[in-house]
Amino acid sequence: MNSFDLKSYLSSKREQINEELGSIFANDSSKIIRAMKYSVMAGGKRIRPILCIAAAETVGGKDQDVIKAGCAIEMIHTYSLIHDDLPAMDNDEIRRGQATCHVAFDEATAILAGDALLTLAFEILSSLECIKENHVIDWMKVIHTISTAAGYKGMIEGQMQDMASEGDLLCLEDLENMHALKTGALIEASVTVGAILGNGNIHQIQQLGTYAKYIGLAFQVADDLLDVEGDPNVMGKNAGSDQARSKSTYPALIGIEQSKQFAKKLVNNALKALDYFDNKAHPLRAIAHYIVDRKK
Amino acid sequence: MNSFDLKSYLSSKREQINEELGSIFANDSSKIIRAMKYSVMAGGKRIRPILCIAAAETVGGKDQDVIKAGCAIEMIHTYSLIHDDLPAMDNDEIRRGQATCHVAFDEATAILAGDALLTLAFEILSSLECIKENHVIDWMKVIHTISTAAGYKGMIEGQMQDMASEGDLLCLEDLENMHALKTGALIEASVTVGAILGNGNIHQIQQLGTYAKYIGLAFQVADDLLDVEGDPNVMGKNAGSDQARSKSTYPALIGIEQSKQFAKKLVNNALKALDYFDNKAHPLRAIAHYIVDRKK
Repeated sequence: MNSFDLKSYLSSKREQINEELGSIFANDSSKIIRAMKYSVMAGGKRIRPILCIAAAETVGGKDQDVIKAGCAIEMIHTYSLIHDDLPAMDNDEIRRGQATCHVAFDEATAILAGDALLTLAFEILSSLECIKENHVIDWMKVIHTISTAAGYKGMIEGQMQDMASEGDLLCLEDLENMHALKTGALIEASVTVGAILGNGNIHQIQQLGTYAKYIGLAFQVADDLLDVEGDPNVMGKNAGSDQARSKSTYPALIGIEQSKQFAKKLVNNALKALDYFDNKAHPLRAIAHYIVDRKK
Repeated sequence: MNSFDLKSYLSSKREQINEELGSIFANDSSKIIRAMKYSVMAGGKRIRPILCIAAAETVGGKDQDVIKAGCAIEMIHTYSLIHDDLPAMDNDEIRRGQATCHVAFDEATAILAGDALLTLAFEILSSLECIKENHVIDWMKVIHTISTAAGYKGMIEGQMQDMASEGDLLCLEDLENMHALKTGALIEASVTVGAILGNGNIHQIQQLGTYAKYIGLAFQVADDLLDVEGDPNVMGKNAGSDQARSKSTYPALIGIEQSKQFAKKLVNNALKALDYFDNKAHPLRAIAHYIVDRKK
């Protein structure tokens, strides 16, 4: 495992994903496409599509089986950022090191660009060219998994709870539940979708789901820590914004040191869920470590 | 055809659709569900799901085959209204006779309720309970048809063009193109989806698509006329708003009388596209007349 070069893995997958995403927005003749492209191509970590690919590889699938699904998930992630950044929500002006969509364009265009990315995700997931006839039922499961995770039972409910809790300090249980919905659900969906399209069996899909639950929460604890301790120049967004908004965070609730311990414990639990798999799970193992060690 | 009782047909289908939609929002324990339900259950005409059902019946299908798809389309229609009404877009305070979603709740909740309705549409369209295994490829086509019509090549581009044109008088061709995208695309999708799930053959699906194109535009011309001549108490929204915003409309471009003639011509063309069908197309025929004769 020590010999696994995560940095090369991440950058090669990221390049592949960016190429695929770029080809989708190659014709940017209209303002709405330019706004969608502006936000999607702003250079995110692409952690969700990478997880999708790595999960597929873990069960013996190929990245070409899942890259379109990974791109669709990245679009949903990007739409959620565009809408969360709006003046009526977090009112953020910087994201991924550049002006947020409503600042670079205007508010109406940003709302519609988010809507259009969410809709395009499902257009891609249902395009017959990326579906092999014999696996159409799997693609249907994929659409259902993603839409459920992104909707009012998942990510959107998480954002509602996040907004409702501003100013109040949540208890640990409510904070965990909020994160499980707001970021955990789509991360879990990314891994599950990879496992489904990689042709994993039911037990493999379940184990990978457990892995995803743990790294999803670890990802958020790490995000909270970065907001306290991170370097804004490296992150491409302002630090300290959680505290400025009196948001409930792990550091605020249990302190910085205990938050770090907690993140480590979550990563260990994630790794245990991968015991079942062979070397093909090395990327997922390395990603679990990376999630808490990253600087942005 | 004269013997066909459209009023009973519409009200019985509407009741069925409202029942189905109501059952989806039966558990309204969270604020986001209450906001979604508030807008969806505000008593729209349900013309899109009714078209979906009537198209299915025209090719010999049953309403139970398509009602869920019809409800999903109604959710997408409702999401588009919620977002169009936002302060950053049309800034409307009254819709379907009640306060718009962002007035009744708040702007952030309205944005997320729209997002959640759009997402829920795809969750429903991909739910395995409503898919018969042997028709799964048809459902995939349905998801693709709807997402393409609702996205940046369809409804959303139409809204962008509509916003961009405010203050300018469009030429007739641009106005028609804008409407074909903004309202026409989803109306055409409603009919096409009904024809697909009703098991229509390719020629039937095409004929019904032609019908839908004509009534889609007729619908918009009639809307423009209602905005000039309609009774706000009957419509449940303010009249004269297009003029107040200097929007391009058919009455503004070609006058009221010529707009009425144009709407009639479109309806006749729509009816011609139905010549191919037997009595089972009577509801679609009657709907074509209704679209230009309605008072709201």
